[in-house]
Amino acid sequence: MRAYDIIRKKRDGGTLSKEEIDFFVSGYCSGSITDEQAAAFLMAVYFRGLDPEETYSFTMAIVESGSTADLSGISGIKVDKHYTGGVGDKTTLIALPVAAACGAKIAKLSGRGLGHTGGTVDKLEAIPGYKTSLSGAAFAAVVNRTGAGIAGQSADLAPADKRFYALRDVTATVDVPCLIASSIMSKKLASGADRIVLDVKVGSGAFNKTLEAGKKLAHMMVDIGNRAGKKTVALLTDMDAPLGYAIGNSVEMTEALETLHGRGPTDLVQVSLSLAAELLFLSEKGSPEQCRALASAALKSGAALAKFEEMIAAQGGDSRCCRDYGILPLGKITADFTAQAEGYITGVDCEAYGRAALLLGAGRNRKEDPVDHGAGIILKKKTGDSVSKGETIATLYSTASDPGPALELLAASTFIGSEKPAVRRMILERIE
Amino acid sequence: MRAYDIIRKKRDGGTLSKEEIDFFVSGYCSGSITDEQAAAFLMAVYFRGLDPEETYSFTMAIVESGSTADLSGISGIKVDKHYTGGVGDKTTLIALPVAAACGAKIAKLSGRGLGHTGGTVDKLEAIPGYKTSLSGAAFAAVVNRTGAGIAGQSADLAPADKRFYALRDVTATVDVPCLIASSIMSKKLASGADRIVLDVKVGSGAFNKTLEAGKKLAHMMVDIGNRAGKKTVALLTDMDAPLGYAIGNSVEMTEALETLHGRGPTDLVQVSLSLAAELLFLSEKGSPEQCRALASAALKSGAALAKFEEMIAAQGGDSRCCRDYGILPLGKITADFTAQAEGYITGVDCEAYGRAALLLGAGRNRKEDPVDHGAGIILKKKTGDSVSKGETIATLYSTASDPGPALELLAASTFIGSEKPAVRRMILERIE
Repeated sequence: MRAYDIIRKKRDGGTLSKEEIDFFVSGYCSGSITDEQAAAFLMAVYFRGLDPEETYSFTMAIVESGSTADLSGISGIKVDKHYTGGVGDKTTLIALPVAAACGAKIAKLSGRGLGHTGGTVDKLEAIPGYKTSLSGAAFAAVVNRTGAGIAGQSADLAPADKRFYALRDVTATVDVPCLIASSIMSKKLASGADRIVLDVKVGSGAFNKTLEAGKKLAHMMVDIGNRAGKKTVALLTDMDAPLGYAIGNSVEMTEALETLHGRGPTDLVQVSLSLAAELLFLSEKGSPEQCRALASAALKSGAALAKFEEMIAAQGGDSRCCRDYGILPLGKITADFTAQAEGYITGVDCEAYGRAALLLGAGRNRKEDPVDHGAGIILKKKTGDSVSKGETIATLYSTASDPGPALELLAASTFIGSEKPAVRRMILERIE
Repeated sequence: MRAYDIIRKKRDGGTLSKEEIDFFVSGYCSGSITDEQAAAFLMAVYFRGLDPEETYSFTMAIVESGSTADLSGISGIKVDKHYTGGVGDKTTLIALPVAAACGAKIAKLSGRGLGHTGGTVDKLEAIPGYKTSLSGAAFAAVVNRTGAGIAGQSADLAPADKRFYALRDVTATVDVPCLIASSIMSKKLASGADRIVLDVKVGSGAFNKTLEAGKKLAHMMVDIGNRAGKKTVALLTDMDAPLGYAIGNSVEMTEALETLHGRGPTDLVQVSLSLAAELLFLSEKGSPEQCRALASAALKSGAALAKFEEMIAAQGGDSRCCRDYGILPLGKITADFTAQAEGYITGVDCEAYGRAALLLGAGRNRKEDPVDHGAGIILKKKTGDSVSKGETIATLYSTASDPGPALELLAASTFIGSEKPAVRRMILERIE
């Protein structure tokens, strides 16, 4: 078998066998297949795609390039949750304690934010003392004891994915649905959970700008999970505007806590409870309706808040933050973004809102950059709200950055008109 | 400007500017653009192509990656000839002395054989003492004195082409017409001639299997040459069967000499004289009809043979070979390939005939391999001839190789049937 022939076969629209894909991925990892051959292969895949069987084989070859997390120390069905990146998405901080309060076991390995997208690990690290770097045994103990644990991804899971991703990043082959699906799923499958809930974001703040693109990606990922024997469900949810009113790390943690206190914004509550219900459904806690009712009740009763306190303490965090938000960092440099005209906010460029938070220091351009946990944006008005000229739409916070560029970006990305837009539907589709 | 954006633009079907192409090629040469980025770019070009302006810019960027041969020491219009690779093609050894005998100035930089394709340099080196490695000044002196010189390509012409070619060779991006056109033309333009005659082969022994593909490539190359201000003419000629009756180095030299003696096979004479006429036409020696008549006369009178003797002597070769073929090497191991059935030879896989010669030692699989100048095949029968069972179709010669595999290959690649096939047309089209 030769790398050349595999590249050529894919280039010419052929279907690769499991053996050919294994040969290519393992050869790339061992160095017998070069970066330039892998780059040519990835570009051929951009044009020709991979069919479901090829996508599954490619994903499994990546999983097999490293070790798989051993979650055998955790009793019961282990469920994982993943979201495809968005702005203001703190649903994990709500859905996990809700589901754990209802008896689910959730072992979530989570990434850091990159570009306009926030990461759950960064948000958790806004809590003084919170540790996201845990040994396998310590992680299993946390999940066993509290029902839910959230840790950063370890470097030895799916190492081929990191190499392919770095290559895609410099060769314009990132935005290829089958490669995105296999990259995400390789990490989820290597994470060792039994079942997977996917939150596929759709809209101007998401990778998938259209519902069609989101559905395509969701179907691919669900197919990979199910082929691997790990039941997978995907919800397609709206990301045409930031979720809730906070964008950043500390400010999102505060909003998540407010939601657990029963004072959350409608859109955030709706998406979080839908995801919690899916986690419970995959944990076999009842019918979809029963799971939905269980989740709502756990939020309403305060059981989810108590569970989150317990989770924070179990990972070394200062759980007083649940009642005293003042212990979370908040940037001292502030500025108000105000309306230039009167009318309704008819829409926003949601990705630009994420980039504005990044400009304030809340995100990172490159993986190795630090983040400012106290930086962020708190919205007062969102799509559909009416504003008068000069009224504050958002307050910006930063520890060290000039808010000027972020203010300019928000001004260019907020559209005010005379007609009130239709109310957004938050849960667009469910795929299993 | 970033390599990423250029790759992405081409991937998405955009048209690259001269500045973008210059940036990419010079960045690749300097090392600021990596092999993997160049590989992704080439694969994107496979799918999207380059338009005529882009192809020209890409070619010129490759020319500018190195030095250009200085032919200013040669007086008059300097013409070069190139053929796109075939089997038994010794037309250069005939057309050049014919044209030089009529007063043309031909400075030909020539390649070595690779794969099933023979190279003029290898054929010339079958002559004892013949030197193809000449300094620029010595080469100019040869052309000035005799009217024609043939030298191996120097390494500092179009160095980017060598790097791109090595990359294409391992990433399945060799067979891309615009890249082939720019690779060939970059070397021709760097060779410094004023005008260029291209012989684009078409058929089972050529890179271009169909006339359509050959015309596409010819149009691209002619367009590049003309844009560069170097008038270029292409003939599309048949390569569905070996040209003449000899395949190899020494055996082809002998056949070329026989042709210069006036005893050449029809197909070879026809293509050689057509090419010689084009060389004369570009040298402004008259109308196409006048040039054709001049070429025929020079062959008939023996002037071309005398010119070839002079050319051989000028490059250090033993010109006694022109009258005594015995001083050319010929392998002692021989075998006859005989007909398995009675009938007409209805066709051959011409590329396989080239590979059979390679198996005997006449060619090379890799650039660094040596060649056996005494190895080759002499055909007794060709497409259109009738054979009786057991009659010899070809005699094989080798210095060190077992002729068995070559015999098997010829048997599998020679088709005998009951109907005499139509006579092949040798000159298929002329493009300028």
